[in-house]
Amino acid sequence: MSIPPSISTILKAGPIHFGPFLVTTQVFHLTPHTYALVNLKPILPGHVLISPRRVVPRVTDLTPTETSDLFLTVRRVARMIERVYGASSLNIAIQDGADAGQSVPHVHAHVIPRKRGDLDHRGGMDAVYEMLDGEEGDLRDAFREEGEGERRRFPRVDNEERKPRDMKEMEEEAWMLAREMEREPVD
Amino acid sequence: MSIPPSISTILKAGPIHFGPFLVTTQVFHLTPHTYALVNLKPILPGHVLISPRRVVPRVTDLTPTETSDLFLTVRRVARMIERVYGASSLNIAIQDGADAGQSVPHVHAHVIPRKRGDLDHRGGMDAVYEMLDGEEGDLRDAFREEGEGERRRFPRVDNEERKPRDMKEMEEEAWMLAREMEREPVD
Repeated sequence: MSIPPSISTILKAGPIHFGPFLVTTQVFHLTPHTYALVNLKPILPGHVLISPRRVVPRVTDLTPTETSDLFLTVRRVARMIERVYGASSLNIAIQDGADAGQSVPHVHAHVIPRKRGDLDHRGGMDAVYEMLDGEEGDLRDAFREEGEGERRRFPRVDNEERKPRDMKEMEEEAWMLAREMEREPVD
Repeated sequence: MSIPPSISTILKAGPIHFGPFLVTTQVFHLTPHTYALVNLKPILPGHVLISPRRVVPRVTDLTPTETSDLFLTVRRVARMIERVYGASSLNIAIQDGADAGQSVPHVHAHVIPRKRGDLDHRGGMDAVYEMLDGEEGDLRDAFREEGEGERRRFPRVDNEERKPRDMKEMEEEAWMLAREMEREPVD
């Protein structure tokens, strides 16, 4: 399969960082100030992250232009994710600062597609929040190796139950979602 | 104390609804497309809600202009709340649709100021999420009386542990926060 045009653009525009981590090949959508990223350990299928291209920790660090661009992108990506994953609702959440549970110090909005009863086997509708916090911890730990702050491309495989996905799987999902974003109306 | 100028503007611009509920006197900030509202049963002091003035249930129902205005307002209100309540972080969360836990079918972003260890006595940092879901249920039930969908101004007092606040307390907080928003830089 040929590379989606938007993926070519992203690879040319890179490198793209999520906090200290190089994530260029996991990015599926790029705007002037924002990118959207597939997840190492999605809580549910279609769980993605939206971040400003500038690495800043807090929402208040964003300029008004970056803020608008970030949330217009959240809205468009969320609409695409709901369509592609056949969801009926979405959780949108930002842990803005360490004392709110943020572990990677780079603004990121979680977008998580939801369906009726999707987490009944995990303790019900609200289980997503505990998983979200677990997930963030995993994300940081999985990316990080010895050498705090070292920029790394490949996640460390850890011994937790929810295994991080391999790079090939994430890149294939990024290409699929890039194609779907190309189909999404601009407004 | 004299009425803050922005509260006069809000009262003239009203009525303002949160879903089916009339909330004009609990609103402390108003922009062309967005308002900010004090909470009947805040999870933590300073827990507020930001909503579009147009009553629509889903983020994707917002126009791009409404989306930008909503999140620029979230950013400014969040900055003010963090300052006024001496917080170090914020949770920002949207339950976008019933299957994500939304109970009042009107887009609303929760902004919750956080401090280190603030929920240790409630089960730790993540307890905010369970409380958030409880809160939403409370909010809906507290506003609603017999007569589904009836527009009501005064919350019903229920017999739950966390009592809804009285209207006077909420209006005083709205005036205080209105004054603080008047001091907040535009950008």
